[in-house]
Amino acid sequence: MSKQKPAIPKGTRDFGPVEMGKRNFLLNTIRGTFQKFGYMPLETPSMENLSVLTGKYGDEGDQLLYKIVNSGDFLKKTTSEDYAQGAASMLPKIAEKGLRYDLTVPFARYVVMNRHELNLPFKRFQMQPVWRADRPQKGRYREFLQCDADVVGTSSLLCEAEIVMMINETFEKLGIKNFSIHLNHRKVLSGITQVIGAKGKETAFCVAIDKIDKIGKEGVENELRNNDFSEDAIQQLQPLLTLEGDNNQKLIALKSLLNSSEIGKTGIEELEQVMQMVNGFGLQAHHVVYDLTLARGLSYYTGAIFEVKIDNTGVGSVSGGGRYDDLTGVFGLPDLTGVGFSFGVDRLYDAMEALGLFPESSQAVTTVLLCPFDETAMFHALPILGKLREADIPSELFPEPAKMKKQLNYANKKAIPFVIIIGSEE
Amino acid sequence: MSKQKPAIPKGTRDFGPVEMGKRNFLLNTIRGTFQKFGYMPLETPSMENLSVLTGKYGDEGDQLLYKIVNSGDFLKKTTSEDYAQGAASMLPKIAEKGLRYDLTVPFARYVVMNRHELNLPFKRFQMQPVWRADRPQKGRYREFLQCDADVVGTSSLLCEAEIVMMINETFEKLGIKNFSIHLNHRKVLSGITQVIGAKGKETAFCVAIDKIDKIGKEGVENELRNNDFSEDAIQQLQPLLTLEGDNNQKLIALKSLLNSSEIGKTGIEELEQVMQMVNGFGLQAHHVVYDLTLARGLSYYTGAIFEVKIDNTGVGSVSGGGRYDDLTGVFGLPDLTGVGFSFGVDRLYDAMEALGLFPESSQAVTTVLLCPFDETAMFHALPILGKLREADIPSELFPEPAKMKKQLNYANKKAIPFVIIIGSEE
Repeated sequence: MSKQKPAIPKGTRDFGPVEMGKRNFLLNTIRGTFQKFGYMPLETPSMENLSVLTGKYGDEGDQLLYKIVNSGDFLKKTTSEDYAQGAASMLPKIAEKGLRYDLTVPFARYVVMNRHELNLPFKRFQMQPVWRADRPQKGRYREFLQCDADVVGTSSLLCEAEIVMMINETFEKLGIKNFSIHLNHRKVLSGITQVIGAKGKETAFCVAIDKIDKIGKEGVENELRNNDFSEDAIQQLQPLLTLEGDNNQKLIALKSLLNSSEIGKTGIEELEQVMQMVNGFGLQAHHVVYDLTLARGLSYYTGAIFEVKIDNTGVGSVSGGGRYDDLTGVFGLPDLTGVGFSFGVDRLYDAMEALGLFPESSQAVTTVLLCPFDETAMFHALPILGKLREADIPSELFPEPAKMKKQLNYANKKAIPFVIIIGSEE
Repeated sequence: MSKQKPAIPKGTRDFGPVEMGKRNFLLNTIRGTFQKFGYMPLETPSMENLSVLTGKYGDEGDQLLYKIVNSGDFLKKTTSEDYAQGAASMLPKIAEKGLRYDLTVPFARYVVMNRHELNLPFKRFQMQPVWRADRPQKGRYREFLQCDADVVGTSSLLCEAEIVMMINETFEKLGIKNFSIHLNHRKVLSGITQVIGAKGKETAFCVAIDKIDKIGKEGVENELRNNDFSEDAIQQLQPLLTLEGDNNQKLIALKSLLNSSEIGKTGIEELEQVMQMVNGFGLQAHHVVYDLTLARGLSYYTGAIFEVKIDNTGVGSVSGGGRYDDLTGVFGLPDLTGVGFSFGVDRLYDAMEALGLFPESSQAVTTVLLCPFDETAMFHALPILGKLREADIPSELFPEPAKMKKQLNYANKKAIPFVIIIGSEE
């Protein structure tokens, strides 16, 4: 067998002990919050049938799905005409399965397959890798972890309020102090397009306004013009594009603008109710900011939408979500409402690093290292080692009576806080 | 979009909240043991380059690897001659990546890529899914979890002894009382083929003797005959094939047989040293059984080998491993010795179920459910809910003032032990 210099695929990563320690600190904190709020764990297979995945993420998403070559003679369903026609004709005949692209579609599939056994409202969390054949770049990987929590089967706004609570709790436990939970409502956005006479153009409006942080007010106006919004409409939007003040002042301005829109008023009412509930928990600081520029790309959101940003880290949104009206319609179970959100683990990790928030202890595994002077000392060490572990103290015996410098160096590199040197005389 | 009845790929599984609770109990116990013994977590990508995976698992293994279709125009490196020649010619040109088949090869790759930074001896554990395009059957899945622990960079027999300790500790925490850790040594097996005049036939001997539980003594003898072992050789084996008694009696019989074999004597000495160390820990019962019929299939083992069986469950081996001399030679780093073992999670799960050992609490997530009588009661419940969670008590508020029967039914199905009914008068 030829010797080879091994490598890992572009856009993928090994997580060694140090990174794992930090990631586990992060993931255990998130998991702890989900469970404290009554969310239950779910795991779905890495592979899904392509019939389940295809068409759910738009054309671009379909391109980015990883497809798995059928087992055995994978060409057997193809013809030389298929081959002559190229990849698009061949693909459906050589690949039936693909890798999970997100956790939402597998969750929807699970809900439909188990609808008769589910205890509604069903609260689940899921922390699993997903795969996208995207061009790798800083902070964007081809395999990355998603952490989703969703509750389906209830339209209660308590769920939205609890998402605010879960974000607060998680960030508090992580030690992140300066962050904001941006909150908006799809019905508010619909109301706005209605009152400015651009009904039916919600998507173009949302896409444009979503970019205001990146391209500025003028950029948004230009994009709206390019999408045939009238100058009059853009004029009416001015108070919104420059909305200042606290949440109450923003609501007052919004209410006055949306006075003639039923859907817009519903959106405002729901936002107010969510905040009432958040306040009802008796939280000191909720970090919620009404943000009318928040639209979120995914077209399936229909109610409140969220996005979380951490100050002074240069890291983008680290969490987001919203309410949807029809999670499972595409699988034949219509009108199932729910609300969900997810944490972006890679970005949160980067933010935690930038802020120096990972506890040193997150890396340590072993508490005590026993260092034997010689072969006989190793046998003296065994019962001590047994006793330490009986007391649930993670401990190791250096497996050879090596030079003490080597042994201490091992302890040092592994960040083991306590060392016991064992002689053979005792 | 057409409505479809969704399904999951054959040989894969969803793990709902109940299974997840039990699996997490199992996995947390295993992880706890690994960490207590100083093993550190590692995770590698699900996808590896096929150049890393191919040729490591034999021809059958290569067939069972899941391959991933290259992104974009995956046919661009192929020609119509390739197509005419069939799947074997096409495959290397349309797929560069495959899914992890086990955790050993990725670990070897990781060690080689990080050899200059590793703190030797390097103790790592890894708990991740692997994928095999095998024919699904009871207890055999196409995606399943492996839990491996390995230490590389030391030939100390302490590592072998600690594997015995880790198995004991894990099973004790799981509540499994009746099990045996079968122990043998590749050098003992080599010594035996030497003294019976069948040197060089270790593999055929191991393959035959490994089946003694399934095909019996006569079956093994026939298989040896079919592999050109002489009647004289088979005659000399008789005392071994019918070896009875405790570990000491077996050692005495072995020593007498292997008196003329240096390699065989080394094997026996090492087994004795491992047992001395195990006893040095002061363990009450070590569950170790010398088992000369244990061979283990994998050809890379060179020293002690292990396998664990649970009594009265009908489940096969639930754990196994051994020492190897050359983990990373195929990647250009020769002579790295190590020892490792793994737990078979699916079989352990089945055994735990058969023995009724999963604690009831492993399923429960929520401790308290608050049940509101009406809309106003929901608001009364909020500060109570906040206080419960502040005290780290997993709690929920039923999100709607639904009929009490419905709410209690929810608590019941979710196995929530405490319910607090909230009226609006208080």
